[in-house]
This record gives sequence, structure tokens and C-alpha cells, in this order.
Amino acid sequence: MEKPNRPTILITNDDSVYSKGICELIKVAREFGNVVVVAPDRVRSGMSRAITHAETMHLNKLHEEDGFIVYSSSGTPVDCVKLAFFALFKENKPDLLISGINHGSNSSVNAVYSATVGAAMEGCINNVSSVALSLCDHNEDADFSFILPAIKKIILTMLNHPLPYATYLNVNFPMGQLEGMKVCRQSDARWSEEYDQKISEYGDKSYLLGGYFDNREPQSEDTDEWALNHHFGSIVPSKVDMTNYECLNDLKNLYGNIR
Amino acid sequence: MEKPNRPTILITNDDSVYSKGICELIKVAREFGNVVVVAPDRVRSGMSRAITHAETMHLNKLHEEDGFIVYSSSGTPVDCVKLAFFALFKENKPDLLISGINHGSNSSVNAVYSATVGAAMEGCINNVSSVALSLCDHNEDADFSFILPAIKKIILTMLNHPLPYATYLNVNFPMGQLEGMKVCRQSDARWSEEYDQKISEYGDKSYLLGGYFDNREPQSEDTDEWALNHHFGSIVPSKVDMTNYECLNDLKNLYGNIR
Repeated sequence: MEKPNRPTILITNDDSVYSKGICELIKVAREFGNVVVVAPDRVRSGMSRAITHAETMHLNKLHEEDGFIVYSSSGTPVDCVKLAFFALFKENKPDLLISGINHGSNSSVNAVYSATVGAAMEGCINNVSSVALSLCDHNEDADFSFILPAIKKIILTMLNHPLPYATYLNVNFPMGQLEGMKVCRQSDARWSEEYDQKISEYGDKSYLLGGYFDNREPQSEDTDEWALNHHFGSIVPSKVDMTNYECLNDLKNLYGNIR
Repeated sequence: MEKPNRPTILITNDDSVYSKGICELIKVAREFGNVVVVAPDRVRSGMSRAITHAETMHLNKLHEEDGFIVYSSSGTPVDCVKLAFFALFKENKPDLLISGINHGSNSSVNAVYSATVGAAMEGCINNVSSVALSLCDHNEDADFSFILPAIKKIILTMLNHPLPYATYLNVNFPMGQLEGMKVCRQSDARWSEEYDQKISEYGDKSYLLGGYFDNREPQSEDTDEWALNHHFGSIVPSKVDMTNYECLNDLKNLYGNIR
């Protein structure tokens, strides 16, 4: 039976429509509203906010029942969101966009490279309340059960309280144990690359990405990394606007007279 | 002859090592220092901050002479920067990273999807003064000549004045005529998608990205779009930290008690 007053929730991710994380999320989201899934047909991790242009994309319906429909797409996670808005929603945007649950951390600088986060940002750019959910566990059979109660509370809070303009939530959960949630800022961190170099029989060098995580402020208690390292989930309200307002005036003096 | 006191400038882009924009940039940069180019071996526009993982990448030396060396890579622009730091610089990072000159605008929301901008952000994450340069002209034979004097002044200013911590510059130039440069904020804008739908002889639908640009604040004189629409170049100092600090406390009240 159609329930027209239930909210509509758009779900995507970057681990593909076949991952455990998105299946767990779908089960939870269906308790709150009608669910539309548009997710990549293959793993698209590390695609950030990449878009596909000058190349066609497919949108394939995999499943449909009352209040629940699933599509896969050959596009990136951001393409999935854009395609969903164009082909499935037109004027009536969904009430909520949830991206995830990602298998692996998207805290601190990982948010820059993450397509789980990229998809949430795309929802936000289009004025849809959006959240990226990630569990710090890369295992494809990761245990999501202990974070589902917190995810339900986050969904309920988002449905009842619109986020600030041009702002989305980047939410990460620690592995194995959850003490509670902390609203925090993005840690200052980077990946220090250590590529695995291979030399072919013809002498060609090739490089495989590796490296270690370098948290530049492990003692800062107001950061997402600190929360995650202390068994808390982290919620970082994140902006589309990347302008560094603090230095605008200083830079006007330096660059404003260039012609 | 080796000039050890000359600065070292790392150059990359997303239009590939074979584009006109990067060639024009190389000529200018060589006036200021030793130049190392690591750029994609093919067009990688719209790749944002995407990284390649679980797949090897190549780094091929195309040219070498005193104070000038050129590599192409099979990676994304962000991969090019990471690979350059790992394989070519190790501890001695370059003095400057310049990404571009891009054929096409990377102002306002375009910066989100742009790999030209993504590469500059990656330099900044690694504490290298970084700038993305773009000309609002997609033509592969675009005229860059009228913006080169301003680019020289930007390079000189960057070499003499370190940018604020974790901040890079996103610079765009209007087409055809340059009145001067303005330091400004990122406009609030989005792309309103209008995909070109194709239906195959078997009934399969496919989608090709198109759309129109929706500037939500065309009257705001402090924005990059306004500058570009009035024949000025725009310089947006941009941050790695995406946290929306203004709403942290409000959201703590809403989400801070979730367990």
C-alpha cells in the first residue's frame, strides 16, 4: 500500500550495490521511509567527487517492490546522485540522502578522497539533507550491528531538523565498540605514501599505492580522529564552500593589484 | 649548468601532458626555476581528488635536460602529485606546485569536481605552496597569451610569500580579456543536470552528462563568478579543512547525546 506521507530516502555508496554495508543501511532506512537505491555496479572507492563526462552511463533497475526500488549505475557515486535526481526525482527531491555504510574510515583527510563523502556533498549541493556513513573496518563481512541503533537516531534527527545551508554530515564509526557520538572538526592529517615499486622483466617500473596515516594532531580532543580512537563515533558537519575566509584580506593586499 | 639556488617547481594538470595549457605554463615556469612535470598520459578531467588503488601505475620519463624534466603517468592528477613526491622528491619537496593551465573554468562549484584543483589541494596537504590555474575556454587551441603576465606575477608572489597553512589558491581567468585579478570567495552555484538520454535498439537507456550552470548569487560582487563575468581573474584561497565551524555547537546539542 502506498504511504504518501512517508519520507523518501535516497541511498548510494561507493563499495557497490552488492556490498554488505549498503544492505545493512537499506534495512534500517526502510523503517523510516520509502527507499530508492542508486549505487555503483562495481567498487568505486577513492573516486572522490569524480564525474563521468563524454561517456554514456547506464541505470539498471535491479529490484522493485512497494516503497523500495534498487538501481545500479555504471557511473561514479556522484554520477549516481546526479542521475537519480535527473531520472527518478525531477522536481520532487528526496527528503534525505544517505551514502554508505562505507567499509573503511572516511575521517579527516580520507574525506577528501572518499566517494562515499563525495556523494553526500553532491546531495547537499542540490539542497537535499545528506549524510555519509562509514565504519572503520575494511572487512567485506564487517560487523555493522552495533552501530545501527546510533544510525537510526541520526536518521530521525536529520528528518526532524534540517541541516544548515550547504552543509552535510560526515559520520564515522569506530570498529567493534561504540561509546556514543561526538560532533567534531576534521583532523589535520595526511597519508604519507610508500608505493610498492615493481620492475617488470623489461625494466619498466610500476607503482602500487600504499602508505601510512599521519595524524598531525593526535592530542586534539575536538577532532574526529580523537573521537574514533576513543571508541566514539564522529560527526563532522562539512561545507561545500572551500574558501579560507580568514586570509581573504591579507591575500587581497598581496594579489589584488595584479593585472 | 646546474643552478642549485633556483626554486624547483612541480607542474601537473588534468588535460594530459600533451595539452596546450601545460606547455604554456611550462614555458612561464622555466623563467623562475627548475621545472619537474608529472602529468597524466591522457585526459583526466572531472576526476576531482580521485586516487588509484589496488591497481599499479606507471611513471614514464618523456624528456630530460638541465633544469627541466617531464614524466607522464597513468594515474589521476592527485596520483601524479603523490607519485612525484614519493619517487622524485622524497625529503626535498618542491618549492611550488602549479596545476594547469586548465582548458575550462574551475570556478565556484566546478572546483569540487576538478582534478586540476584536486592536484593543487594534494600539494597543499603535503605542505607545498600550491595553485590551480584555469582559463574559461575549453578550446584545445585556446589563447593563453594575455594571461601569462598575470601568471608570472602570481608565481613571483607565491615564491616570496608563503600561503597560510593548509591553504591553496584556486585561480581562474576570463576568456579573451583580463582587467586585473580579484581575491574572492567561492560562489554558491551548482550544475543543473540535463542528461542526454539515448535508447538502444534493445531498449536500454543510457545517459550522457549535460546541463546548465546555475549561479545562485549572480549579484554578489565578492565572488569568483562575479569577477570572471566582469573580465577579472579570480583568486580563491581554499582550505583542506571542510568543517563548518559555525554550526558545531548547534549540532552538538542535536547529535551529541546519541549513543
